[in-house]
Amino acid sequence: MADRRSIEAARGAGRAFMEQTRYEHLSPSDQMRGLPPPPLEKPYTKGRRVVTLPSSFPSAGAVDLRTAIDRRESVRSYAPEPLALDEAAFLLWSTQGVKKAVRDFYTLRTVPSAGARHALETYLLANRVEGLAPGLYRYLALEHQLVEETTEIGIAGRIAEACGSQPQITASAVSFIWTAVAYRMTWRYGERGYRYLHLDAGHACQNLYLAAGAIGCGTCAIAAFHDGMLNELLGVDGEEEFALYVATVGKVP
Amino acid sequence: MADRRSIEAARGAGRAFMEQTRYEHLSPSDQMRGLPPPPLEKPYTKGRRVVTLPSSFPSAGAVDLRTAIDRRESVRSYAPEPLALDEAAFLLWSTQGVKKAVRDFYTLRTVPSAGARHALETYLLANRVEGLAPGLYRYLALEHQLVEETTEIGIAGRIAEACGSQPQITASAVSFIWTAVAYRMTWRYGERGYRYLHLDAGHACQNLYLAAGAIGCGTCAIAAFHDGMLNELLGVDGEEEFALYVATVGKVP
Repeated sequence: MADRRSIEAARGAGRAFMEQTRYEHLSPSDQMRGLPPPPLEKPYTKGRRVVTLPSSFPSAGAVDLRTAIDRRESVRSYAPEPLALDEAAFLLWSTQGVKKAVRDFYTLRTVPSAGARHALETYLLANRVEGLAPGLYRYLALEHQLVEETTEIGIAGRIAEACGSQPQITASAVSFIWTAVAYRMTWRYGERGYRYLHLDAGHACQNLYLAAGAIGCGTCAIAAFHDGMLNELLGVDGEEEFALYVATVGKVP
Repeated sequence: MADRRSIEAARGAGRAFMEQTRYEHLSPSDQMRGLPPPPLEKPYTKGRRVVTLPSSFPSAGAVDLRTAIDRRESVRSYAPEPLALDEAAFLLWSTQGVKKAVRDFYTLRTVPSAGARHALETYLLANRVEGLAPGLYRYLALEHQLVEETTEIGIAGRIAEACGSQPQITASAVSFIWTAVAYRMTWRYGERGYRYLHLDAGHACQNLYLAAGAIGCGTCAIAAFHDGMLNELLGVDGEEEFALYVATVGKVP
């Protein structure tokens, strides 16, 4: 628990952040100072199990965009059916899929990002995906692969607990957890980049809502989570990399 | 210009904000303290010109969602053609359209928002829309109307200047400027709500990218703007209400 002093310090934190990230308060960024850019993707530990994802999505039905937008809603109850692997792949591609990597400098994706910095990482809690052992994975967007983080029993329950025990996490077929590797953005934009990290998570989540509809699924976004608990479960330090946003997906009953 | 002290104070602003908006540091929100919710929409000055928007969009073509996601890219050069009024209406509906208002308490829209708080306001810079005098408007999402803010000559150029003189603002048929009325979100979520405001602007902008494709338009998001200049042009105070995100739209040449 925080003490009274830290609670006092946090009053007005949002307004202070908006003020301090105005251009006139920014120091020159590391890019401006000539430092080299960080990697486009968080490296993964060699030896971990990697799953190559389908790059065509035959199970994803055609849906008219306007219909998809019109039907957008948050759905918290899911049927017990699993997702096909190509359905999960379709959701990952729709939210962070790389269409082009330009040298080791930037990527163009299915979603925009300030300066094409794309500082998000996508963790996928797979409860029910055909061909995937239940567990926590990370999407390697450049390779269109999943790397296994853990298949430890109970990971879904612990992630649910970190999200205030919202029952749709354990009930979901998959849950997306977007983190930011902050320096990938702040290298270019400095502290203002923290605004952009959140904008980017919003882009990804909106596409998830729409794409989930095309595979007969409902989605529910969750931004209320215990940062420390969730970061620890993801194995990220909470400063260099931290959780931004969560969304659950499952077949509509 | 800021002085050296304010620049020093701004170092680490992003990390401090993420830390201070953790749950353990939040004070009880006004909703928890029993205060009534703020209005769902910013009121407008009576007597201003109001334009009722078409609520069907015959000019918006059918496009498959997957194709729309696959084609998502940032486009900065536009053809001189105007948008039809129903095309502009389609973009506004896609990004903030109200599907249901539940009492005066919350709204369900084409995009998600934490707790359905929907704290965004949408300003539309209309350079070339059939049936609309060029100028700055605000979208009344509840009424699906536009209210005129100003048709003063030169407003587009001044908004472009506030966005670092990026030429696509004056070249665009329309530009979206999303602001947040912060208390509509913080009433429920306190300081953590400032994260959610940015997530929400990301949702809206992603739908704009996709919907613009369905009317033969390209889009370019802009998060690099001079907050003070832009807020002043919008007539907002920069604290209770402030600009979050900008996006330009025009026909593809």
